[in-house]
Amino acid sequence: MTALRVALAGLGTVGGGVIRVLDANRELIARRAGRPIEIVAVSARDRSKDRGVDLSRFAWEDDTQALARSEADVVIELVGGADGPALALARATLAAGKGLVTANKAMLAHHGLELADAAERAGAALKFEAAVAGGIPVIKGLREGAAANEIARVYGILNGTCNFILSKMEAEGRDFAEVLAEAQTLGYAEADPSFDIDGVDAAHKLSILASLAFGTRPAFGAVAISGIRAVLAADVAEARALGYRIRLLGVAEAGADGLFQRVHAHLVPENHPLAHVTGATNAVVAEGNFVGRLLFQGAGAGEGPTASAVVADLIDIARGEFGPPYAMPSHALAAMEAADGGKRRGRAYLRFTVADRVGVLAEIAAAMRDAGVSIEGLIQRGANPDGSVLVAIVTHEVAESSVAAALERLRGSQSLIGQPMWMHILG
Amino acid sequence: MTALRVALAGLGTVGGGVIRVLDANRELIARRAGRPIEIVAVSARDRSKDRGVDLSRFAWEDDTQALARSEADVVIELVGGADGPALALARATLAAGKGLVTANKAMLAHHGLELADAAERAGAALKFEAAVAGGIPVIKGLREGAAANEIARVYGILNGTCNFILSKMEAEGRDFAEVLAEAQTLGYAEADPSFDIDGVDAAHKLSILASLAFGTRPAFGAVAISGIRAVLAADVAEARALGYRIRLLGVAEAGADGLFQRVHAHLVPENHPLAHVTGATNAVVAEGNFVGRLLFQGAGAGEGPTASAVVADLIDIARGEFGPPYAMPSHALAAMEAADGGKRRGRAYLRFTVADRVGVLAEIAAAMRDAGVSIEGLIQRGANPDGSVLVAIVTHEVAESSVAAALERLRGSQSLIGQPMWMHILG
Repeated sequence: MTALRVALAGLGTVGGGVIRVLDANRELIARRAGRPIEIVAVSARDRSKDRGVDLSRFAWEDDTQALARSEADVVIELVGGADGPALALARATLAAGKGLVTANKAMLAHHGLELADAAERAGAALKFEAAVAGGIPVIKGLREGAAANEIARVYGILNGTCNFILSKMEAEGRDFAEVLAEAQTLGYAEADPSFDIDGVDAAHKLSILASLAFGTRPAFGAVAISGIRAVLAADVAEARALGYRIRLLGVAEAGADGLFQRVHAHLVPENHPLAHVTGATNAVVAEGNFVGRLLFQGAGAGEGPTASAVVADLIDIARGEFGPPYAMPSHALAAMEAADGGKRRGRAYLRFTVADRVGVLAEIAAAMRDAGVSIEGLIQRGANPDGSVLVAIVTHEVAESSVAAALERLRGSQSLIGQPMWMHILG
Repeated sequence: MTALRVALAGLGTVGGGVIRVLDANRELIARRAGRPIEIVAVSARDRSKDRGVDLSRFAWEDDTQALARSEADVVIELVGGADGPALALARATLAAGKGLVTANKAMLAHHGLELADAAERAGAALKFEAAVAGGIPVIKGLREGAAANEIARVYGILNGTCNFILSKMEAEGRDFAEVLAEAQTLGYAEADPSFDIDGVDAAHKLSILASLAFGTRPAFGAVAISGIRAVLAADVAEARALGYRIRLLGVAEAGADGLFQRVHAHLVPENHPLAHVTGATNAVVAEGNFVGRLLFQGAGAGEGPTASAVVADLIDIARGEFGPPYAMPSHALAAMEAADGGKRRGRAYLRFTVADRVGVLAEIAAAMRDAGVSIEGLIQRGANPDGSVLVAIVTHEVAESSVAAALERLRGSQSLIGQPMWMHILG
């Protein structure tokens, strides 16, 4: 049978990995795909760079955009960036009726609907398993595996860098800044880590998962985002003492109130599977109205896992097994209103660093009481070297607007040192 | 677009669940499938039984086999049994060029290759997501999600009844027989539980997973099977003291030695995700040469989860997204020799119940030494009420044939009370 001809744009870690996967598992992949998968052309910024693979077999294009006009049936976009050359290539590829495989979560978060529409008009494939949770087939799991279900909630550990840092802080009792520096040395965090540690990367992925899970239009702009910079070693220790682990979670829910999407550090109960996900591993949970709770776990990044997902998409395309990118035609995706986060109810973890003097605890407790926030547990820990005291509170279930009101009452208080920390408790 | 017409054979728990899923999520499923999915005919043994769903909408067939000659595009086989009416219906359905969706692991374990061949000849779908691990999309995960990988090992918790019993023994320190009786009362175990607790059900599922993972012919007959009847509360406690949990695992490996498949109670290290899978939950791990370790976890049985998997298969068929049942044409599946289990190396847990008298420990230790089995750890616990003593041993890595030789040396020893227990330690 005729080979599926592939053009590869971008020869970084993942691009090199794709070539290595197709080389190493060539025969097996052909058996599974029903036909060979052949790279015919490649493009990257620097032709001379040694990538550890023989590129002389492939046509080289200095102009990445030329791949959309090549003889390839499918273009793999690994250029990166939400706009610019990646988006131009994606548009041109689909307009030419070729399939597009991409790992570009930023582009999908911002332009996924437009690209899906273009793919559907052209009858072409648009596949992006590698864009979320690396090698874990969670796009397929939601799009197809759980397709019989109305999904009420999808959530998970979507950023390996953050999970690496948080679980290292947990294992070693160390502070964020110190562990981040080590993660950068080890290559688990970028030189400019803000996309990861401030939650933007996880939010890109969450918006893709939400769209697939709920049948709604991707709504990246509506994701409430915060990261893990403010998590202290003391928070990790207090959470642990209370029976929780801290994880940066992306959480999306669809309900009568609308679409709720948030990336935030959460306290995860120790008996929840996500509490046991350590290191750079990713894990996604989907809750369906018939299937119950499904968990998908594996490597969320890295050359091999991400390339594995890219090639899985190629195999689906080679088999002709692809349909609308978001499981249903893009025009059928619902435009759901963003939910009002303040109305959400849940339990909260609050941590205050306070001056060690009379009346501070009473002031905090009064603010809670006046805002209608009921305290389930409170730990006050002896003086830090600088004389400050740490107060950690777990609330009973309460509307988030009430917690916000309590914190508002304390704003500007002379007793507080720095910003209070508010984390949600996964329920 | 025209509806996908479905005939449903078998109206037990899962059959009723399929009707309920299609009723409850009708519109969403039609959007995802690209067209409505309509049940047109049903058949079961007893027409008068109340199943809590309105059957008057569907044509009724007293003769289940008649569904293969109905106007349906797809027949769902939920009759059960490896042979007999289920197999006859499956053969007739595929021969008629209709798609077949089945949850029947026993039939697939015994006749999967024949049925796949028939499906391929007819160009018809044969799908069986519900046959393994209930609602967890692990068939799809292996067939498609991990398709780019050479998979070296697939293993997991494949029987919810056994996991329910073992984790209850663990949580409550109770003995097998007592917990089994309670599981039967609660409906987690059948009146005749042997298919579950002796490992046969898990072996059916394992043989299906192995075929998909490795691209080999299903080889149920080559699965080494044992169950959990011999696991004592004391084993659970000793394992725990040593840092392990006991789980019934199906384990399949493909390598230079051939195809190895075994269902056996294992000691799972506490830092492994499977150690945290409790209750009736199932979980499957696949290890690919690029993706690394993938974990799929969820409800392994029950009306909703199993029906969810059946309907996911229907949605794939409605979309036209199906190919060869075992990912590659059945004639391309390799006929791999069964591996010699004795050559496998690993660490073992051995437990002896012995008489409390001088020299017993020396006798056991000598048998180990003479067979070349090196002891990593040993616990001897004080007298049971009957005066017997428990000796639990963890070995260093050793060939399984050596462990067998050590036990052979002890066979018939007057010091031993009952059979020694041998469990493998998951490595």
